[in-house]
Amino acid sequence: MKTALIAIGSELLDGKIIDKNTQYLGKRLTDLGHNLSKVIICGDEKEELTKLIQSLKDYTIFISGGLGPTLDDITKPMLCELFKEELSESEAATQITLTHFERGNRDYDKSVMHYHLMPEGFTPLLNPVGYAPGIYINQDEYEIFSLPGVPAEFQEMLEQSIFPVWFEDQNDRFIKNVIVKTWKVPESKIFHELAPNLWKRLEEFGTVSSLPHSGGVDIGVKLNAKSKEQLLADEKEVLKLINSTPIKDYIWHIGPELLEEVIVLKAKEKGLTIGFSESCTGGLLASRITDISGSSSVFWGSVVSYSNEVKMKSLNVSEQTLKDYGAVSEQTAFEMAQGARKHLEVDIAVSTTGIAGPGGATPGKPVGTVGIGVSTKYKTESKIYHFRGNRLSLKQRFSQAALFKMLEAIIEA
Amino acid sequence: MKTALIAIGSELLDGKIIDKNTQYLGKRLTDLGHNLSKVIICGDEKEELTKLIQSLKDYTIFISGGLGPTLDDITKPMLCELFKEELSESEAATQITLTHFERGNRDYDKSVMHYHLMPEGFTPLLNPVGYAPGIYINQDEYEIFSLPGVPAEFQEMLEQSIFPVWFEDQNDRFIKNVIVKTWKVPESKIFHELAPNLWKRLEEFGTVSSLPHSGGVDIGVKLNAKSKEQLLADEKEVLKLINSTPIKDYIWHIGPELLEEVIVLKAKEKGLTIGFSESCTGGLLASRITDISGSSSVFWGSVVSYSNEVKMKSLNVSEQTLKDYGAVSEQTAFEMAQGARKHLEVDIAVSTTGIAGPGGATPGKPVGTVGIGVSTKYKTESKIYHFRGNRLSLKQRFSQAALFKMLEAIIEA
Repeated sequence: MKTALIAIGSELLDGKIIDKNTQYLGKRLTDLGHNLSKVIICGDEKEELTKLIQSLKDYTIFISGGLGPTLDDITKPMLCELFKEELSESEAATQITLTHFERGNRDYDKSVMHYHLMPEGFTPLLNPVGYAPGIYINQDEYEIFSLPGVPAEFQEMLEQSIFPVWFEDQNDRFIKNVIVKTWKVPESKIFHELAPNLWKRLEEFGTVSSLPHSGGVDIGVKLNAKSKEQLLADEKEVLKLINSTPIKDYIWHIGPELLEEVIVLKAKEKGLTIGFSESCTGGLLASRITDISGSSSVFWGSVVSYSNEVKMKSLNVSEQTLKDYGAVSEQTAFEMAQGARKHLEVDIAVSTTGIAGPGGATPGKPVGTVGIGVSTKYKTESKIYHFRGNRLSLKQRFSQAALFKMLEAIIEA
Repeated sequence: MKTALIAIGSELLDGKIIDKNTQYLGKRLTDLGHNLSKVIICGDEKEELTKLIQSLKDYTIFISGGLGPTLDDITKPMLCELFKEELSESEAATQITLTHFERGNRDYDKSVMHYHLMPEGFTPLLNPVGYAPGIYINQDEYEIFSLPGVPAEFQEMLEQSIFPVWFEDQNDRFIKNVIVKTWKVPESKIFHELAPNLWKRLEEFGTVSSLPHSGGVDIGVKLNAKSKEQLLADEKEVLKLINSTPIKDYIWHIGPELLEEVIVLKAKEKGLTIGFSESCTGGLLASRITDISGSSSVFWGSVVSYSNEVKMKSLNVSEQTLKDYGAVSEQTAFEMAQGARKHLEVDIAVSTTGIAGPGGATPGKPVGTVGIGVSTKYKTESKIYHFRGNRLSLKQRFSQAALFKMLEAIIEA
């Protein structure tokens, strides 16, 4: 089964908001042994949309967006035209709608909103979070799921109304993405110097990919087996192959988990508590860790100390250090890490202090300079690093480097 | 000119990473008076890609991804095939590549990497951040910009190598998206009760849109004028029209700026300093504010107090309050806001304490419950709210509600 997502919304193309539904749908379909093959983001022109859907006849189509109550919400009228159906009052849709409005303590006004209208051929889908019911259509060679665009509604509708009915345990293929995450080695070295024949040998098992990003390279092999047994055997063989090369010394994790997930898992395993003091990452380290459910059992807190006053007061950074070396220095990073470990009473603390730009550069300290400190009960260390990018990508790179330092400290502890 | 982005990468479809380039390109093209009309995210199958490009002949095409040094990087071979060109050593590409490798203190190995190869018909583009040069092609009715997929490289190549040459001051249309941001009123009420004729009247000036999100509705009118004078006159007229309706009482900002940008701007205007104490948002409030350049002049810091110990120690929340009412309560939110204002020594502090799930719910406090507190020198207040969604969308909604509280407090101060 090939699946495609059509994300409708001029606000996605204007850059007013970021599309979060692609990643969610792609990840979950992959988890369930399916595949997202294609995504099209487009505006809400009826004719273009109709053509697009017609060009995707051999796909299961997800549509996100265009289901709201206002005059610019075109998905339902467009689908009616395509299937030559008329909108009429649907008992099922009305019931779903009224339940939602009662839940929100609001009155539903039929003269103004059209949530309760749906042709007979369409199946309304429960929306556990918002007001607009979704739509399922299976006719004239088409299979279409139409969902709201708001990420919380899109995601919960998938989880509660769509996946359990149409996608779970329906697949006759056994797909798994084996992911081996490496660090401290550049991409070009992996497949040329360390393991020149590996890529070709891995290709016997599935599609091979190599994804470099700040701080590491993820090697992926997408297995596509005919039975559960073969899938397990293939996975074992792939890992054995990789582990027979010098790459094995550069692996920090095997599996799809994010760096922040691995940190939470490993800290939990070792019974360690962690915390941060953040200047240039401005809360991003803490936010990434708290994205992980269960993080509260290891993560105590973070002191986001954007001002020097907070650095001195909460983290006990000395005024003299700030005066002599500046806020962005090895010395300040050192004292921030030490101060955070004591203040938050954690086993390991990591600190960041740097210049994310565009302003703030000083002679010898360009934008992209960052001091990262690590403090455990055995030792405290800090170092200056340099990265390139704009403000947001630098915050991301600073945070990635700092989280890698945290992982290192957890592994060593 | 119509423009399209083709984002190549199975890691985008698998959900391993989120596509950040669409938003960036869309926002910047809009800023420059252009338009992103369509985005296609797809895997790296050569044949499909070729067909896709052939179907976009009347577009200026941006391609992201597939330019790395490993065996799975197909963009350059695919483009060569499409234009019937042969790869050969290019002086310009070699020079760009060597400069980059010197900058990174690494040796370039021609036998392994193919950055220096480029057909004569293609123009290599400087990559200010990474190794792979970009490609510009203008032949056989096609105009194509091929860029690396890594967001920092994609973005800086646009800013430094592409926009200044091809996109700035080249347009003969005058486009502007007038955005009016409202709060405290549901979307359905705006265009039905408050201003039933507004939508139609606004449509005389351009495409009208309505974007609801947690905490508000953004009304957009995309003006498309023939002169600068007409653009200014149209904008004035649109704002006059909206301000002549009761909507005017629900406007919190006019312009494309994000909530966090408006907070920084308004706090700066009033000479106020701000800070947070965060439990359930886990650093996201601070991270959103520090995404804004210049935030350091108003934002002092945030105490991310995931554990009760940190709540008591840094924020002076009393043990009795935690025992009697629990960490997720109006009382704790109150003391956290008050404590943060004192500890961080800021004019306004906002606190969050809630349950982002999936675990942590208790009787009477389901997942989605959040206490938000606001403390200024005049008063401290707190209240419980309820939202729906999964962990990540709840963190987002909690942070949106808390930032709106911050904006309110700044406006009132």
